[in-house]
Amino acid sequence: MPAFAPFRSVARPGVLLAAGALLLAGAPVWADAGAGTADVAWPLVSDLTTQVGPRLAGSPAEARARDWAAQRLRTLGFAHVAIEPFTIRAYRRGTDRAELVGTAAQPLAVVALGYSGATDEAGITAPLAYFPTLAALEAAPAGSLAGKIAFIDHAMAPTQDGSGYGPYGSVRRKGPGLAASKGALAVVIRSVGTDHHRNPHTGVTSWPQGMTPIPAGALANPDADQIARLVAGGSALTLHLTLTGQTVDGAPSGNVVADLPGRDPSLPMVLVACHLDSWDQGTGAIDDGVGCAIVTAAALRVQAQGKPLRTIRVLYAGSEELGGFGGAAYAQRHGKEAHALAMESDFGADRVWKVVTNFAPASDAVKGQLVAALNPLGIVSQEGEVEGGTDVGPIIKAQHLPVVDLAQDGMHYFDLHHTPDDTLDKIDPARLEQNVAAWTRTLAIVANEKAPITAR
Amino acid sequence: MPAFAPFRSVARPGVLLAAGALLLAGAPVWADAGAGTADVAWPLVSDLTTQVGPRLAGSPAEARARDWAAQRLRTLGFAHVAIEPFTIRAYRRGTDRAELVGTAAQPLAVVALGYSGATDEAGITAPLAYFPTLAALEAAPAGSLAGKIAFIDHAMAPTQDGSGYGPYGSVRRKGPGLAASKGALAVVIRSVGTDHHRNPHTGVTSWPQGMTPIPAGALANPDADQIARLVAGGSALTLHLTLTGQTVDGAPSGNVVADLPGRDPSLPMVLVACHLDSWDQGTGAIDDGVGCAIVTAAALRVQAQGKPLRTIRVLYAGSEELGGFGGAAYAQRHGKEAHALAMESDFGADRVWKVVTNFAPASDAVKGQLVAALNPLGIVSQEGEVEGGTDVGPIIKAQHLPVVDLAQDGMHYFDLHHTPDDTLDKIDPARLEQNVAAWTRTLAIVANEKAPITAR
Repeated sequence: MPAFAPFRSVARPGVLLAAGALLLAGAPVWADAGAGTADVAWPLVSDLTTQVGPRLAGSPAEARARDWAAQRLRTLGFAHVAIEPFTIRAYRRGTDRAELVGTAAQPLAVVALGYSGATDEAGITAPLAYFPTLAALEAAPAGSLAGKIAFIDHAMAPTQDGSGYGPYGSVRRKGPGLAASKGALAVVIRSVGTDHHRNPHTGVTSWPQGMTPIPAGALANPDADQIARLVAGGSALTLHLTLTGQTVDGAPSGNVVADLPGRDPSLPMVLVACHLDSWDQGTGAIDDGVGCAIVTAAALRVQAQGKPLRTIRVLYAGSEELGGFGGAAYAQRHGKEAHALAMESDFGADRVWKVVTNFAPASDAVKGQLVAALNPLGIVSQEGEVEGGTDVGPIIKAQHLPVVDLAQDGMHYFDLHHTPDDTLDKIDPARLEQNVAAWTRTLAIVANEKAPITAR
Repeated sequence: MPAFAPFRSVARPGVLLAAGALLLAGAPVWADAGAGTADVAWPLVSDLTTQVGPRLAGSPAEARARDWAAQRLRTLGFAHVAIEPFTIRAYRRGTDRAELVGTAAQPLAVVALGYSGATDEAGITAPLAYFPTLAALEAAPAGSLAGKIAFIDHAMAPTQDGSGYGPYGSVRRKGPGLAASKGALAVVIRSVGTDHHRNPHTGVTSWPQGMTPIPAGALANPDADQIARLVAGGSALTLHLTLTGQTVDGAPSGNVVADLPGRDPSLPMVLVACHLDSWDQGTGAIDDGVGCAIVTAAALRVQAQGKPLRTIRVLYAGSEELGGFGGAAYAQRHGKEAHALAMESDFGADRVWKVVTNFAPASDAVKGQLVAALNPLGIVSQEGEVEGGTDVGPIIKAQHLPVVDLAQDGMHYFDLHHTPDDTLDKIDPARLEQNVAAWTRTLAIVANEKAPITAR
């Protein structure tokens, strides 16, 4: 697995050397002076994912993560460290189980989607109706799924820019509601993922206003392959499905916010974000513990080079995975504070390959500085729309902020995304260091820019 | 994942082309004339793992597999197809669950080992005693594990010849009994595996005569990493462990035996074997559905080249995983029939890289023919002890048989071995074809050799 070289030796007792140190010793071209990956980024993501572990939105574990993060940020020298609570509609996982019964009887690896409807502990048993695509399900007549469990297949493949998550992700986001609207008892989908492991990909789904949710799960890709082969061979399949998780209102969540004050507190600040919650199956290493590690380490490195002109604020958003609650809460609470620019790291731990901004022509000179600083790290500049991100999206929209997207390589992101396999060993310290270096160079420029940067 | 190029497209409805056909169209050097991987080997392992799925020793699924196999062998033109029943001590999986409680509270991916003792549904909670190696556990004082759950770590790494499975595998085979002998309440081990997925490796353990089994499980490698990091950081850990599976006596199992009769039935036959049972987590594609596919396809290809002099018998052994019951039953039932040579395929689906025989000097000429035939397939000849294999071991021993080991590359075998990830998509049709070619060339020589081949 070249893309996710595992670092098990790091994990062994007696081998306490932080992996990033190996790199700094080798002094790659991007090893800018500063606190360093070994000192901040690696321990941050290692400790968060090991000592706290999974951090489901609205769970006690997410609350522990907030306390842990606030303490870590204070230890690292951040000012104004605050936990900012809010409540959410949460999903609490129950028993997830699926098996073919009758023909080709066998267990299947399944996970419930966030906000799934629930079966009871005995589960439900029904014929499976196979749809090769979401479009095929859309074409099914009204009422035609009565008494059936829909299965929605698709053909997602890896892309460097992650663009498959839009169209293929709609199978997860829209498929369940669509199946329910046609009378389905329940729905299972092929995992929205590009790996070949028995680790199904969860993620949130949504239901049209007023619709009663039906049980909705995702099968691991090898299990979806089984179904596809059996259907292709002419088998009529029957599924026994048990998904007992519950949706609950008023669950406690919150953001963690902290500042590195700049030399001129009167200037609008630079906001850098990640999200602190994770899906519950893995430990949220690449999604998105590593994002918090990257933005935190880079902010500290910029400060280590000399206090920057503008304040850099870090936002560890809560409850991103269930629909961006943390980003919305941040914009609501801090919408009257002046922001200069916003950025987010939430696409894994692979290297930054592309920079995109939404700068207006008046800020061409700043963009030129960024491109010149990032190019030696193997990063190309491209035109196009910026992503921003779920956690900074609301404040970007409210204040029409400039954005710098440091786009990470997504060729392997959807191998791990929302699976039990999202664990620390999947982070390559060399690629983590390249991320921190790219963020450091970017923040060093924008946080020291005296003139306003303007969005087009 | 270069080693296990997945072939999802094969699985999709409408893409019914057997993957091997792609190769035969390309006519690699080893595409000997005959039935071909696309016609026999790929469909055999695909259908077995898809239509039957997991085939735990002594289970109803294993019985379905015997019926399936007998029917397939008849369809393929084998003679004397027989199901030969026997009974075994079986293991029936229950609930497998583990979680750290208190410090670093989080769920861990665990699987019970075969013949594990059982907890009740509520599980047990106890402090974890960490042992970095089996030797460290051996050095623990008698009684020192009273009231504790032992955790045994190790440092298995991949080897081409699979030789790590001996020493590191002893953690699974001997560790539980050793921990029990020192008073442990239960034991968990780092999976005997070389991957980095949340898929723990099961496998059989054993208990010294007269000892009451204690609950014994394996953690996935990323979970073992968590424990190792926490212990290295000084944390005292508490584990809640639930393993409710049961050992039962008198469970039905059996072998499937079938012949391709040779031109001279008076000559001793050539025996080729695989095992039909699999662990229950995966679908037993590489362990060992593919072995049955390889030996069956090769035997048919030899026949397609002209009826061989000697009968070729295929043995699909039952209940290999729980201790070689099928091989023992075969030797007992067929020990008076004359065998010329025995071979087994049970080390996955990667390419054959090495041939080893136990031929006496009198059979040097035959060995020379084998080496000359196999060398163009990238296979080297080495001296050394032969493995034979669990399913043919008893008859080899009883009749002092010559053996040809066609050793497969094991660099990635223990990524998948005994995990949920042992599924069809992990088989590379090109490597499967190389296996069938190597077996075909080997069988063509030994089944047409008139003189006895003698073992040293």
